[in-house]
Amino acid sequence: MARKVAVVAAGHSKFGKRYDATMRELCAEAYKPIYDAGVTQDKIDATVLSYAASQFTGQGAGSALMADYLGLQNKPHLRVESACTTGTASLRAAWGMVAAGLYDVMLVLGVEQMNRVSSAVATEYMSMAGDMRWEYPYGISFPAFYALMASRYMHKYDMPHEVLSRISVKSHHYGAQNPKAHLPREVTLEEANNAVPICRPLNLYDCSLITDGAAGVIIAAEKRVKEFTDQPMWIKGIGAGASAMMIQDRESLTSIPGAKRAAKAAYDMAGVGPKDLDMVQVHDCFSIAELIAYEDLGLAEPGKGRELIENKEVYHDGRIPVNCDGGLKSKGHPLGATGLSMTYEILKQMRGEAENQSRQIDDVKIGLAHNVGQSGQFVNVFIFERGW
Amino acid sequence: MARKVAVVAAGHSKFGKRYDATMRELCAEAYKPIYDAGVTQDKIDATVLSYAASQFTGQGAGSALMADYLGLQNKPHLRVESACTTGTASLRAAWGMVAAGLYDVMLVLGVEQMNRVSSAVATEYMSMAGDMRWEYPYGISFPAFYALMASRYMHKYDMPHEVLSRISVKSHHYGAQNPKAHLPREVTLEEANNAVPICRPLNLYDCSLITDGAAGVIIAAEKRVKEFTDQPMWIKGIGAGASAMMIQDRESLTSIPGAKRAAKAAYDMAGVGPKDLDMVQVHDCFSIAELIAYEDLGLAEPGKGRELIENKEVYHDGRIPVNCDGGLKSKGHPLGATGLSMTYEILKQMRGEAENQSRQIDDVKIGLAHNVGQSGQFVNVFIFERGW
Repeated sequence: MARKVAVVAAGHSKFGKRYDATMRELCAEAYKPIYDAGVTQDKIDATVLSYAASQFTGQGAGSALMADYLGLQNKPHLRVESACTTGTASLRAAWGMVAAGLYDVMLVLGVEQMNRVSSAVATEYMSMAGDMRWEYPYGISFPAFYALMASRYMHKYDMPHEVLSRISVKSHHYGAQNPKAHLPREVTLEEANNAVPICRPLNLYDCSLITDGAAGVIIAAEKRVKEFTDQPMWIKGIGAGASAMMIQDRESLTSIPGAKRAAKAAYDMAGVGPKDLDMVQVHDCFSIAELIAYEDLGLAEPGKGRELIENKEVYHDGRIPVNCDGGLKSKGHPLGATGLSMTYEILKQMRGEAENQSRQIDDVKIGLAHNVGQSGQFVNVFIFERGW
Repeated sequence: MARKVAVVAAGHSKFGKRYDATMRELCAEAYKPIYDAGVTQDKIDATVLSYAASQFTGQGAGSALMADYLGLQNKPHLRVESACTTGTASLRAAWGMVAAGLYDVMLVLGVEQMNRVSSAVATEYMSMAGDMRWEYPYGISFPAFYALMASRYMHKYDMPHEVLSRISVKSHHYGAQNPKAHLPREVTLEEANNAVPICRPLNLYDCSLITDGAAGVIIAAEKRVKEFTDQPMWIKGIGAGASAMMIQDRESLTSIPGAKRAAKAAYDMAGVGPKDLDMVQVHDCFSIAELIAYEDLGLAEPGKGRELIENKEVYHDGRIPVNCDGGLKSKGHPLGATGLSMTYEILKQMRGEAENQSRQIDDVKIGLAHNVGQSGQFVNVFIFERGW
């Protein structure tokens, strides 16, 4: 009934501490390769231009600003704001407008500029996505939410912290090979085991980065796809799920209920299951979040996620490669850009365009992106299929 | 191709200085009549829950908070943020997801809580939707943007300020009859002419209100409409338009270019023209904005908008009634709620449910909502058709 929609182009800024660029300049850096690939402004009908937290720059309603700077000031635009899922929430909203026929070609772009303030202030700004009356005033921040989950998981399944360290080692192994990554260097298991504590049991290497950056994609209705590429990536499944606002109200602390609901919805819509996936990008805001994602997505049974990392099945040449771009841990996590950075990476892998063979996944036909907001209050899962 | 979508229920909180209610409680007040009309939580597939400015409460990513308080915490949600067009931008995004078949029934709700800070601080927060590098630091706020437009308009068409006062008199005439209005009292022409200046030529009665409130609607795909009502209001036309970020870059100061583009797109999609409209809700953030809207929507020729108000053609019993609920001026303007409050009012008028006959418009078949963001950077126009 709805029109088929494909991702036909994608762009990505360098992630990092980008003191050299303003928010609008980061957007332009992500749009530049899209423009160079032939998707000039005149071919774009409308846009969704998003960032997660206006606290960082003070800017409200910034889609007008971004549209203006990109030369798209006369095209309809809006901003979606959904914390760390802002990128995929933007893609979900844009998909609807294209699939329903309101627009044929849309630019969906996400950005965050987080390093104009100290990391302590940035952590505080992020915690304002918690309940401003019942969580924030009591001082709980995101490392603390995920430390609660990690503590519970480690207790329930009698798992040592070293399993989490192995996830960080993998992230940095692939981030080191990604020229867009914020922290592109290898980390040893010893370093990851012995790093400074942030919120026990999580240490420095269990936590993702505070990053500036932007990523964007062009989506097009089927009838327009061939104008742009002979290597489109179809949007096959979209699942969104949610969980209770407060962590104590959830059904579980060792899974994210909204992620399981989102995964089921996406699998159902796409008509595929976990075994059909050739690669996965998960929301590893903390190492424990990646482990839990393995299980929420059905890649492993509850409590068995550790086997995937211990047996290196989630490496690029393993059974189910996960985050072979460095993930939020090493590539970085500019909130509004993250979900679209995942989408960018899946398109790149499908096209065989990873920078070198030691991170290129072989023959990707189906990829999944898993993007989580806050401490799991909202989750978007997208399933993409190679179209050539 | 896309599925037909209708508004099947609507709810509205009391607008005003709501020191008695938090943001989430305002949401519940708007959802309550919807719930009472039979649209219980189990019937809602997903939500768009929005507010414009996180500065007012500090709350980021608040859709999770609102969903949780409404008992919708396990349903997919997102927040759209598009300054004063947040309400209709939310409706545009939700329409896509329903029309494309992702969800059958969605709650779209907008709220703003603006009075926990002084009006000076609220004005500053709103001006953060201007360019935070090139406008805000130089002190320009929204009254100033619209004062520039008013000055230019009055000069170009040699129009006295009294015409603008007549618009305020009309707004207050109808607001006085609306029990949901923030400032429900009549204003005389003399009062409106002689009020304290805010930013010349605009005075106190040319400016809309800083209001707390919420409004929401349920939209449903055609196949589900009959479950909810035999008085649906179909979404016939959706037009979004945009203008350059900075006012000096616009084609015109006496019209809002993005509004003209939005109106054309909505008329084209609906297959109707200005002469087919039975009622209109316009974004009268300032009196001059209502006058310009008459012309941007094609209700009057450029420079001739004054005739509509001088001849009382925009009164409830006139040729083309406009804002017979009091508009942003007297009913109030809680940013994120405003576009959905317009939608609520059109449904109410179609159903013949206005509070009394001195504001009830006769036999409304087609209504239009015109919702403007910032100083015109983005505009949404919706055209609705009575479905019974």
